[in-house]
Amino acid sequence: MKTKFYSHIVQLQRSICDEFEKIDGKAKFFEDKWTRDGGGGGITKIIEDGKVIEKGGVNISKVFGELPQSMQKQLNTKSNKFFACGLSLVIHPINPMVPTVHANWRYFEMYDDDGNITDSWFGGGQDLTPYYIFENDIEHFHKQCKTICDKHNPSFYVKFKENCDNYFFNSHRNEARGVGGLFFDYCKQTPTTSMSDWFSFVEEISSNFINCYGPIINSKKLLAYSKSHKKWQEIRRGRYVEFNLVHDKGTLFGLKTNGRIESILMSLPPKVSWKYNFLPEKNSEESKLLDILKNPVKWV
Amino acid sequence: MKTKFYSHIVQLQRSICDEFEKIDGKAKFFEDKWTRDGGGGGITKIIEDGKVIEKGGVNISKVFGELPQSMQKQLNTKSNKFFACGLSLVIHPINPMVPTVHANWRYFEMYDDDGNITDSWFGGGQDLTPYYIFENDIEHFHKQCKTICDKHNPSFYVKFKENCDNYFFNSHRNEARGVGGLFFDYCKQTPTTSMSDWFSFVEEISSNFINCYGPIINSKKLLAYSKSHKKWQEIRRGRYVEFNLVHDKGTLFGLKTNGRIESILMSLPPKVSWKYNFLPEKNSEESKLLDILKNPVKWV
Repeated sequence: MKTKFYSHIVQLQRSICDEFEKIDGKAKFFEDKWTRDGGGGGITKIIEDGKVIEKGGVNISKVFGELPQSMQKQLNTKSNKFFACGLSLVIHPINPMVPTVHANWRYFEMYDDDGNITDSWFGGGQDLTPYYIFENDIEHFHKQCKTICDKHNPSFYVKFKENCDNYFFNSHRNEARGVGGLFFDYCKQTPTTSMSDWFSFVEEISSNFINCYGPIINSKKLLAYSKSHKKWQEIRRGRYVEFNLVHDKGTLFGLKTNGRIESILMSLPPKVSWKYNFLPEKNSEESKLLDILKNPVKWV
Repeated sequence: MKTKFYSHIVQLQRSICDEFEKIDGKAKFFEDKWTRDGGGGGITKIIEDGKVIEKGGVNISKVFGELPQSMQKQLNTKSNKFFACGLSLVIHPINPMVPTVHANWRYFEMYDDDGNITDSWFGGGQDLTPYYIFENDIEHFHKQCKTICDKHNPSFYVKFKENCDNYFFNSHRNEARGVGGLFFDYCKQTPTTSMSDWFSFVEEISSNFINCYGPIINSKKLLAYSKSHKKWQEIRRGRYVEFNLVHDKGTLFGLKTNGRIESILMSLPPKVSWKYNFLPEKNSEESKLLDILKNPVKWV
């Protein structure tokens, strides 16, 4: 399974980067290969200062070896050997009419002293963070998610959508980071779902990612916008930073366990503003976003 | 003591704001008064878009009532009633040749069920975060700190300077946030130091704050700088955000216990950049800063 899933994300990284280069039309991804002292490493692919994408990263990593104590504690396991691989991506477009997107798909294995697998699971998700609301785009994103989910299990979409709303929540602001999508974790073998079933699900949902986001970025990337739209985007990007640095478990775990900092923090937006107590005008497009973030919407 | 210290910070807020308005020459502080549901409140004073100061806040607060459980745990106390007051300030200048400055002075009291004081202490500090190194300025800041410390106890400066280096450390980057200053906490009554002695110390060090920072900002505020200096400042401000949101106990405590978000996050810089793996040129002014942040210096 680990070979199968790693091959999948290697190929997926290539195809997603190709698609984003086509969408951008100017900038190309550059590659940073890195190795991890305890075992494994990754390929970080970064795009910056494009015509459409201000900053983005599509990273894969495969790490293994001794399970760090902090991770043993977090995972509540006695296993001391592990394998993990995954793909993480974040795209921050220039145009404030285009949402930021984040996605991640990952696979874990735990081993006993003899190297037998004691536990294994998939995790992942994909979610959208708009600055201005275009209902059609958000519905499209959620519909794509639901269609794939439904093919695998009719209960997935509702459950994973709710997980996503609960997880990407800036509790200190009492608002969601964005308009959600899917979030799933600890997807393990059950009497009705084999690891192979989970693989098929994650393979299909991740392969379909570009059909979720591509039409949104392509249809909005040339829209006109003003300085005040850009200013709002930069203030909202501040909330993105707040979520990632204060609440996101993956980011904090990486920062506190000597992860590769630059690969982890590629998720942070390129230009960000914090203005004291900025409040949008009543009934403005900006306040419409806030209303939606305060009350998660059923998009499909 | 609580009345005495609160009067001091009320007056100090006024005098520090007056001094910063003189230094800026254009912008004025505006005031936000707020109240806390459980008891108390604060006066947040904010300055933005000045001639010299890009963003700054000088806030006081006085809060009291039932001690939140999370705070009971953090303070390892069984008291369930408390009083706390303090002044917090952060100034982010426009000119990248001028360091950002932070200071905070505070006083706590804990009570038993009958309202008797069971414990009380002072805390605080002041520290400098430069973007470019001017040794004379940093030495001046530390000398001012040391002179006041020495008047009260010859061991204070070394101890509080070391505390500061240890506390304001971005462990995930393996570098200090800035060039330090003083940091002290849980300053309680001892056989040789009364609470009145601690008050005198905190009163004097806080009253002297403007003599620490004023000459630095005044001597550098008109220096010429380029776009690339500004870019470096914005990237370094990203490290400031990382510290405040990932490591700073006060900020995290506030965010997780329903503190007044806008007053807490006034510390975040106005404009910030994250660029992937930005590395300054060897032997540049920028790399000189990094060398110093990686190896804390004895400034006096």
